[in-house]
Amino acid sequence: MHTAEVLLDLFLIFTAAKILGWAAVRVRQPEVIGELLAGVIIGPHLLGWIHPNETIMALSELGLIILLFSAGLETEIEDLQEVGKNAIAAAILGVIFPLGLGYLVMHLLGYSTIESWFVAVAYMATSVGISARVLADMGLIKHKVARIVLGAAILDDILSLIALAIVTAAAKGTFEPLHFILLVVEAVVFVWFLATFGNRWAQINFPVFTRFGKPSTPFIAALIICLGLSLLAEYIGLAAIVGAFMAGMVLSGVENRQEVEKRVKPLGVFMTPFFFVMMGAHVDLKALANPSLLVVILVVVAVAVVSKLVGAGLGAYGMGWKNMVRTGVSMVPRGEVGIVVASIGLTLGTIHEEMYTVVVSMSILTTIIAPPLIRMLFKGSD
Amino acid sequence: MHTAEVLLDLFLIFTAAKILGWAAVRVRQPEVIGELLAGVIIGPHLLGWIHPNETIMALSELGLIILLFSAGLETEIEDLQEVGKNAIAAAILGVIFPLGLGYLVMHLLGYSTIESWFVAVAYMATSVGISARVLADMGLIKHKVARIVLGAAILDDILSLIALAIVTAAAKGTFEPLHFILLVVEAVVFVWFLATFGNRWAQINFPVFTRFGKPSTPFIAALIICLGLSLLAEYIGLAAIVGAFMAGMVLSGVENRQEVEKRVKPLGVFMTPFFFVMMGAHVDLKALANPSLLVVILVVVAVAVVSKLVGAGLGAYGMGWKNMVRTGVSMVPRGEVGIVVASIGLTLGTIHEEMYTVVVSMSILTTIIAPPLIRMLFKGSD
Repeated sequence: MHTAEVLLDLFLIFTAAKILGWAAVRVRQPEVIGELLAGVIIGPHLLGWIHPNETIMALSELGLIILLFSAGLETEIEDLQEVGKNAIAAAILGVIFPLGLGYLVMHLLGYSTIESWFVAVAYMATSVGISARVLADMGLIKHKVARIVLGAAILDDILSLIALAIVTAAAKGTFEPLHFILLVVEAVVFVWFLATFGNRWAQINFPVFTRFGKPSTPFIAALIICLGLSLLAEYIGLAAIVGAFMAGMVLSGVENRQEVEKRVKPLGVFMTPFFFVMMGAHVDLKALANPSLLVVILVVVAVAVVSKLVGAGLGAYGMGWKNMVRTGVSMVPRGEVGIVVASIGLTLGTIHEEMYTVVVSMSILTTIIAPPLIRMLFKGSD
Repeated sequence: MHTAEVLLDLFLIFTAAKILGWAAVRVRQPEVIGELLAGVIIGPHLLGWIHPNETIMALSELGLIILLFSAGLETEIEDLQEVGKNAIAAAILGVIFPLGLGYLVMHLLGYSTIESWFVAVAYMATSVGISARVLADMGLIKHKVARIVLGAAILDDILSLIALAIVTAAAKGTFEPLHFILLVVEAVVFVWFLATFGNRWAQINFPVFTRFGKPSTPFIAALIICLGLSLLAEYIGLAAIVGAFMAGMVLSGVENRQEVEKRVKPLGVFMTPFFFVMMGAHVDLKALANPSLLVVILVVVAVAVVSKLVGAGLGAYGMGWKNMVRTGVSMVPRGEVGIVVASIGLTLGTIHEEMYTVVVSMSILTTIIAPPLIRMLFKGSD
């Protein structure tokens, strides 16, 4: 029966995530590594206990939305303004280096121009989820570097989506400069409008929900705002997670934020593991058994790590070596965005099956490498 | 894009449910009526803004599971034992009367034997969700009658599923007495084992999760138990909600129950509206425009209400008239189980399209009629 299948997936994913997450913490690794590993193990390539389906993917997206909403809730606009210049620099340098170096290496390896650009775009994005999760687990979400990383990662998402729109159009032969300009303008207006007017509106009006109905009313209103802005972000061509993060940030300055936060947390505890387990489920360890492919993957991973580390790190110039390295490393994980770019390229026939495996491996490996490094670099943080 | 569609459904369902739920409370109706109404309005038969799909149905089932788990958490075994005899009497009389009277009326109306039995089985079940929700909203979940109703409704679910298995097998011509006996034995063992050993095990062992990792660990362990027992209940041929309720009851006596409850609540606030909105979305008001069908529906509804009211009410014999009526009325809503029975009958070709509409209308109407009556009967409750 259908209910049984859905329940089995939920039970396996949630239980495996929590047990391996707990085990990871026991060996002093971030919990998220355990969740990714759970996905690798029970996913289709290893044990085959779970297979991505519509329901699980929807739950996993919802989990990511709740995670970004939580991260936004803890990011006050003033905090971002304070690190604004560094965040913007880290975002821009952090996409230019991977894009340039990525294209160059692909080109030198003999790939076609359009395929090289596609892979280069997959290099650009930063998976805000991973770093946000690791820093949140360490209680460092309000650390100066964390704020730079969150801000820059959100900007990266926007820049990557714009770049993806361009290469996709170029691959289809339908590139329209006007459409591209429109997307840029929409993105800027969306973020700017919410960060200024949205924030002020919420500070004045949101506390009313506390004196209005049941104790959970502010939480309900917050969820409606989160879902609404995620949807709006999708509609204007950005990603839902950009909207979710902005929704959180809009509500970060309201006086009854605590009432919202303490109810969002259990929701995140239940939902976010679905996202990380499904990320892990993409990994096919068998690809690592092919020596020539393994070499390509290692080169690509090295380029991905170095280019982001240097680019984003330079963005934090003036904050001392330690914080520059921290910023760079925190932005290394590519996560889901790289996978999304690769799968669009595959669907369009622009990148080959083999290169798809390479890009997915790169996304996953950068995602797995970073958390222990972040943890190490922030230990006894100041 | 796919994400946008899922988000749009979630946004519309959640927002409509909460706004109309709030409006219902304003006019002194139970919130759940507003949520059902939201489903009627935005569902496929009226505005057509939402259409049932796999993801939404999975979320709605998950919502029902969380609701029953919460209800179970507030139902201590001792409470049930105290009202045990009445609950069992209400359950058994509450299914015999609708089954007998339902069959008789259908037979007199000239329907075939097997179709009459199918509809009679759809009469049997009680939707524990609706009454649990109304009583919980009124803060009366620990009232004596509430405990009888919860216990009896769970038993009803089990009895209905057994009856469904029999008529389904009869319709297919594959009735196996052995299989039937097995199902009964499994059901009894499942409930009895959990109510005794499960409960004792939890009281001794569950508090360990408080001293074990993060503050949310008991909540995580509780969710794993809830999902696991729901799944197990499905596997042995009972419904997932029976497992979810039993999981809650197993944990109802543990000393750190509060830590679990306060985190399950926000999950329920987010998830359960999906169930009630999707219930409402089944309603096709146009069926009421056909006069001859309308008469059949009214007869069927009258039989459904009277038979359950009398049967279940008699089960509460010895508790005074007031509590007998309360018990009977609280068990009137048929809700989802009636719809499930009807749709299986339709798929098998045992009941006709028209009779399907009648049974679904009966389920919905009994569901909509009961909450205001329950509210009225329990007002200033003692």
